Amino acid sequence: MKTFGYAAHSGKAPLAPYTFERREPRANDVVIEIKYCGICHSDIHTVRDEWGAKTYPLIPGHEIAGVVTRVGAGVSKHKIGDVVGVGCLVDSCRECSPCKDHLEQFCEKGMIGTYGSTDKDGTMTQGGYSSQIVVDQDFVLKMPKNLPLDAAAPLLCAGITLYSPLNHWKAGPGKKVAIIGMGGLGHMGVKIAAALGAEVTVLSQSLSKQEDGKRLGAKHFYATSDKETFKKLGGHFDLIINTVSANLDWNQYLGLLKHDGTMVVVGIPEKEVPVNAFSIVMGRRSLAGSLIGGIKETQEMLDFCGKHNITCDIELIPVSKINEAYERVIKSDVRYRFVIDMKTLQA
Amino acid sequence: MKTFGYAAHSGKAPLAPYTFERREPRANDVVIEIKYCGICHSDIHTVRDEWGAKTYPLIPGHEIAGVVTRVGAGVSKHKIGDVVGVGCLVDSCRECSPCKDHLEQFCEKGMIGTYGSTDKDGTMTQGGYSSQIVVDQDFVLKMPKNLPLDAAAPLLCAGITLYSPLNHWKAGPGKKVAIIGMGGLGHMGVKIAAALGAEVTVLSQSLSKQEDGKRLGAKHFYATSDKETFKKLGGHFDLIINTVSANLDWNQYLGLLKHDGTMVVVGIPEKEVPVNAFSIVMGRRSLAGSLIGGIKETQEMLDFCGKHNITCDIELIPVSKINEAYERVIKSDVRYRFVIDMKTLQA
Repeated sequence: MKTFGYAAHSGKAPLAPYTFERREPRANDVVIEIKYCGICHSDIHTVRDEWGAKTYPLIPGHEIAGVVTRVGAGVSKHKIGDVVGVGCLVDSCRECSPCKDHLEQFCEKGMIGTYGSTDKDGTMTQGGYSSQIVVDQDFVLKMPKNLPLDAAAPLLCAGITLYSPLNHWKAGPGKKVAIIGMGGLGHMGVKIAAALGAEVTVLSQSLSKQEDGKRLGAKHFYATSDKETFKKLGGHFDLIINTVSANLDWNQYLGLLKHDGTMVVVGIPEKEVPVNAFSIVMGRRSLAGSLIGGIKETQEMLDFCGKHNITCDIELIPVSKINEAYERVIKSDVRYRFVIDMKTLQA
Repeated sequence: MKTFGYAAHSGKAPLAPYTFERREPRANDVVIEIKYCGICHSDIHTVRDEWGAKTYPLIPGHEIAGVVTRVGAGVSKHKIGDVVGVGCLVDSCRECSPCKDHLEQFCEKGMIGTYGSTDKDGTMTQGGYSSQIVVDQDFVLKMPKNLPLDAAAPLLCAGITLYSPLNHWKAGPGKKVAIIGMGGLGHMGVKIAAALGAEVTVLSQSLSKQEDGKRLGAKHFYATSDKETFKKLGGHFDLIINTVSANLDWNQYLGLLKHDGTMVVVGIPEKEVPVNAFSIVMGRRSLAGSLIGGIKETQEMLDFCGKHNITCDIELIPVSKINEAYERVIKSDVRYRFVIDMKTLQA
């Protein structure tokens, strides 16, 4: 099936129009006409070859929202006309222990990523900066009907990346939750943690986003450039979600946890981070990691966001602005997520 | 009350006989005639001034077992003749959030350690290498009647240090638990984890203690000097307790955890340990710390050990051998804990 997209042709070239073939739908496949696709920082790392060698041309995009246009003979979960989404993964082995525990992102044979992964048929997967995509029904999510589809698209990565640890580590009423960083991930953390009933604090480098933070549901907002912040908040939080992939001093933030508190890392710093054993031994604290979420939990997150009317704060752009948007993402100059309007994609 | 003990008179001098005064028992105090006291590696670090400045003379010892000889007027929990124990702490503020959660070891005002701490009356606490000790009844534990008292003494530190994380992180039937290191702490971990019903694996530098490990309850025993160990056991364990305070590569061990597994550090390496975010993000793994245990849990541990007939493997020594024992502890030349026989203490 002839498909149009925007692809990187090398790690150094800007993204450019590209025509390619998607597979004909198999029995369990769903064909989705893509309406919107979010821009994730991972897209940039991947196409720029910063995360290990890839095959080019490569079409990124894993915050995909669209409408079902065809279904295979065995498809029972979705029908033509359904408004659906696809996130970071499009398949997994389905047999290993993590897959059976609904944690397909940790599949022991390796999850099949939405782009740049080798699919079961040996071809390379291509992502959502494109006119359509073909995905096994089990990895297609139902989008909440009440949410604007453009602003809901980034829930598929930014939303689940924050919902999963907040849900797993039980953010909720009576819990003090801090979100480190208020970018694409962090601003979703604020909204979701607040909707879960937690008392939310943003720890941001400066106070420049304070007004936004409070509007999105944060009760408190502190600048981490101010040393007083660390004195004042020592031993304060039940849960901290660190969305910042810059190399922060984790020990300093671990010190902000109450006894039995957990700091969850969802950003991957380039370098290893030195951990002082005292930071975790004192107060029986935990340092944990989390990666997006499984399919079941992603659907749960979408339903939760529908119920609580949660979407991303986005800037909608035409495909022609992708390369410019990339530069702005790198400079953190976006509040808070770019979403590509696919109707601007010319054949 | 005139008391005899073995004290360090400086960070560089060997321990030597020392006569000093204990306070007269107050209303809530229990006076304990010390029968046995274990030698913990912390004793050595502390008296040798490796853990921050202390006041000398200093009497170490926090694995104390003995018999009640006097009680204050308000004491209801213990009576003369009771066989009791004292572990690493003798008091705490009792009002802060950790104290209220029975985690007195994390008291926000600082737990009062059994030796080298400033007590509530301003005096410095002195430990168990001595003829008697005076302790508030709430910090005195009941020793199981069926256990030999000399071999039970180290339960007060080595035992609870391992029981607490094994209990908190739910080692039990169906769980695969690894113990890193088989010294004073590790050998207790093997016994307790096996008694809790877990499948226990020892990860030791060499296979030299393999026979002991299996005798104590380990089902498997691997040498960490063999690189194959890390290949073979990848993604294998639900829980790993790291008892080694040498600077190991934690990332390598985190890779041995199943998804949602936890590695708990109970030894404090001298230097910070570099952590690769991938080690915790992949598989939603946790790196946590644990420090001894609260008083309530310590009593629970003693009762558990009584029920399962668990003691330490010890080498009983006279006080005159303390300095020699210290050298052997440093060389890991003990299977697995020295205990001082206090009847050899001459007035």
